[in-house]
Amino acid sequence: MAGARTGQVAVIFVSQRTAGDAAGYAEAAAAMDALAAAQPGYRGIASARDPDGFGITVSYWTDESNAIAWRDHPDHARIRDAGRDRWYERYEVIVAAVTRDYDWRKG
Amino acid sequence: MAGARTGQVAVIFVSQRTAGDAAGYAEAAAAMDALAAAQPGYRGIASARDPDGFGITVSYWTDESNAIAWRDHPDHARIRDAGRDRWYERYEVIVAAVTRDYDWRKG
Repeated sequence: MAGARTGQVAVIFVSQRTAGDAAGYAEAAAAMDALAAAQPGYRGIASARDPDGFGITVSYWTDESNAIAWRDHPDHARIRDAGRDRWYERYEVIVAAVTRDYDWRKG
Repeated sequence: MAGARTGQVAVIFVSQRTAGDAAGYAEAAAAMDALAAAQPGYRGIASARDPDGFGITVSYWTDESNAIAWRDHPDHARIRDAGRDRWYERYEVIVAAVTRDYDWRKG
């Protein structure tokens, strides 16, 4: 199917986890997924992480203003501070406007 | 650091692997990473995959025409056909123009 995400804003979060606090991180990550899903303009999220702690999360938003509102959400900002302190060695955030997309599924 | 990727094109590939042929898949994935890196306009790639086979790969390109040229590369198309046959249950491709980006690293 073509085009379901065209026009949306994708926020790509690339991160390297520290070795520690797996339980605290898992709890915070689940809470942030749930909080993101409750925000205006949310259109989905997908995450994958290698066993060595390198991960990519992509969240989708209807437009840039909703993506920025989520970035600036106080609970999100608070967890981000905790993440820099405890859970991440490094991360990269890439915000991008979707120009085309398609998907395939085994028939 | 802000803005290293702003203006680039991000190609997000979200996929669910089948259970089989781990060796064949790993070999093909490494060959495609190397081939992508040799293409005009290539600006990097990052991949993560959960133990259950759900993965996200993001490749970066200077512009849309280079991203399209990579999509249409004959070796890439041939491997894609093999992937649909053997390695993937489903996948989604999202092409997006980077509007802002920043990174952070533990000091």
